[in-house]
Amino acid sequence: MTAALQGIKVLDLTHVMSGPFCTRQLVLLGAEVIKIEKPGDGDVMRYYGHDPQFGRNSPNFVGYNAGKRSVALDLTTELGAEALRRLVADADVLVENFRPGVLAARGFGWEECKAIRPNLIYCSISGYGQESILRDNPAYDHIAQAMSGLMSLQGGPEDPPIKAGFPLIDTFSGYMAAFAIVSALLRRERTGEGQRLDVSMLDASMVLMSSMILKYNATGVVPPRVGNKGFSLSATADMFQTKDRPISIGANTDKQFEALCKLLKLEHLLEDPRYANASGRWEHADTLRPVVREAIAEWHAEELEVALNRVSVPAAVVRDLAGIVAHPHFNGRDTFQTIQVPSWGRETKVLNGGFGADADAPNSDLPPPDLGEHTEDVLRSIGFEGEELQQLLAEGQVQ
Amino acid sequence: MTAALQGIKVLDLTHVMSGPFCTRQLVLLGAEVIKIEKPGDGDVMRYYGHDPQFGRNSPNFVGYNAGKRSVALDLTTELGAEALRRLVADADVLVENFRPGVLAARGFGWEECKAIRPNLIYCSISGYGQESILRDNPAYDHIAQAMSGLMSLQGGPEDPPIKAGFPLIDTFSGYMAAFAIVSALLRRERTGEGQRLDVSMLDASMVLMSSMILKYNATGVVPPRVGNKGFSLSATADMFQTKDRPISIGANTDKQFEALCKLLKLEHLLEDPRYANASGRWEHADTLRPVVREAIAEWHAEELEVALNRVSVPAAVVRDLAGIVAHPHFNGRDTFQTIQVPSWGRETKVLNGGFGADADAPNSDLPPPDLGEHTEDVLRSIGFEGEELQQLLAEGQVQ
Repeated sequence: MTAALQGIKVLDLTHVMSGPFCTRQLVLLGAEVIKIEKPGDGDVMRYYGHDPQFGRNSPNFVGYNAGKRSVALDLTTELGAEALRRLVADADVLVENFRPGVLAARGFGWEECKAIRPNLIYCSISGYGQESILRDNPAYDHIAQAMSGLMSLQGGPEDPPIKAGFPLIDTFSGYMAAFAIVSALLRRERTGEGQRLDVSMLDASMVLMSSMILKYNATGVVPPRVGNKGFSLSATADMFQTKDRPISIGANTDKQFEALCKLLKLEHLLEDPRYANASGRWEHADTLRPVVREAIAEWHAEELEVALNRVSVPAAVVRDLAGIVAHPHFNGRDTFQTIQVPSWGRETKVLNGGFGADADAPNSDLPPPDLGEHTEDVLRSIGFEGEELQQLLAEGQVQ
Repeated sequence: MTAALQGIKVLDLTHVMSGPFCTRQLVLLGAEVIKIEKPGDGDVMRYYGHDPQFGRNSPNFVGYNAGKRSVALDLTTELGAEALRRLVADADVLVENFRPGVLAARGFGWEECKAIRPNLIYCSISGYGQESILRDNPAYDHIAQAMSGLMSLQGGPEDPPIKAGFPLIDTFSGYMAAFAIVSALLRRERTGEGQRLDVSMLDASMVLMSSMILKYNATGVVPPRVGNKGFSLSATADMFQTKDRPISIGANTDKQFEALCKLLKLEHLLEDPRYANASGRWEHADTLRPVVREAIAEWHAEELEVALNRVSVPAAVVRDLAGIVAHPHFNGRDTFQTIQVPSWGRETKVLNGGFGADADAPNSDLPPPDLGEHTEDVLRSIGFEGEELQQLLAEGQVQ
């Protein structure tokens, strides 16, 4: 058994979200990731949420950094820079998400690193890319959601713009970086060549929203906001209220519509020529929808979910996180992995890679690193000893 | 120059969205993708939106399938199945997004395909995975958004659940499949072994929402809905109304808050001890927010965007798709690629891979295939000729 990235060394100069999320995916495929943190406090993600019970290992820090090694290194000192040079010489991949130009100003731009390690894969993640006219603009996820048009797509025609409720663009940009890196490793395996990769949140969001962008580019029409309707815009593909909780239903095809009507005891709709096909049901949605809505309101949501799926009509109760995480679907799957968090004195469930495989599936149950936990080990492994080692350890002291 | 997937042959048995989006990413990295479509109509995505001007090449079909070859093949006939067997024997990767069990019932499950091509990478994409208790449930993107808890996260505390405004889970699942496939190709390059990959929309959505799930798993507290606030929940990280359009601002740190106040001529806030640090500003958000809101309302959105970014405060006008696609950021970048669509008699802009590289960046400007356009060529290449070829062409006739 050999995981895809077994033996691959990743030098991780990232912080907060997109970068650590990226390199976590690489950990799960077997890579050895060395996380460089600034002495003192380390990655600000360690304190995300500022919940004292988690100290400097916030749940999100834990989930994104489990299985990595942490080295506290002051890159602004001569010896710190020398240590980084030796780490670059030993790395297959370098990932960074500083603002464009910051690492180059410190002597660790692509050209410099390539000179140290010719077949290096060097991946930068930033808000707008290394060459954009906007490259100097700072970016957070919710800013990228505004900029990219993503906020403009959520909600109904009368609603204000609405943000996705989680750091979607950070997450997807990090995932794109992981994809780019694995592609570059495959290319290196086949050609021996390194590669410089440039991931930007704004460009990544265009790919993410491609379904809407493609239509817009071809028609010049800004897509209407459709609220909770399915993308088919069918009257029977929408969110409906039941006796208890809302449910989303997707009855698009004639077959699905027939099954829905039979289950809801609305067989008379099947005789109505207005509703005989999808375009008729779309045209007469205003008369169809209230009838269906009324019938659905008589059901309990979970019972209706089961009954609809049994007759092959896509449907799901609108769950919250508590509802889905506890779902028996996950029993026996390795979607979540239980890991120990030493500083908490207990375990937690983090995300695995999200896909399965017959062999060498994504997998790592290693704990998150404490700040600087591996500084000494790693520095020794790249040849530091004696006074130099002591000086580096002093420079990299953690609070 | 050798692109990462140059020479890699992908047999694409997918339709609609997640699968074609996945294999489009592989095209952009140099793979040869053969799309198998059902005779007659082909992929239903061809008709998405039912706009007559696009015929059977809807903008979304075009964007997801450009650069592939199309073979119309009836898998239910003896000769059609024989053709598929030969294609499998010749493939590096097979991707499919039928309901679990459908391909196996036709004799093309993982075990059967592995027997034909031992080092094959076989990737399935489905709603709930190949082994889930929910495997037989049909799934659409908006159903997965309900099921996964994703809808529950959008909007403010008083809002109903709100769907992401584009097929987010379909898109991300397809991207995850592309990541899994490239990882598997790297593993195959290093070990010689094929792999069976199992991507599910529900599990992919957990990874996508990991930021919220990690917190929930560690605390047991369902995260509050925060509307358009930044994830810092700072009073000055939110969407605000200007004289014309809304703008999102992210002033979290002391430095950003100071720059914001100076620009808005609210220097007096900097003297106020309540607002001296982030936790104070969070605690006194109710008094701080209205003052900031009033000052922002005096600006024009685009002027404020420029002014704030100039002083390193993250900010972006809340744009719609027209606003962002026309942004000069994209000038000279290859985020979009212009391709010819022969059946439209004109060109359109599709998405490229979303990231840049110094060499062998994602790239393909090939047109989308007409239904069955490459049937004869491909069948000849796998040895069909004479009567058998004619019979297959007859079976695969397109309407």
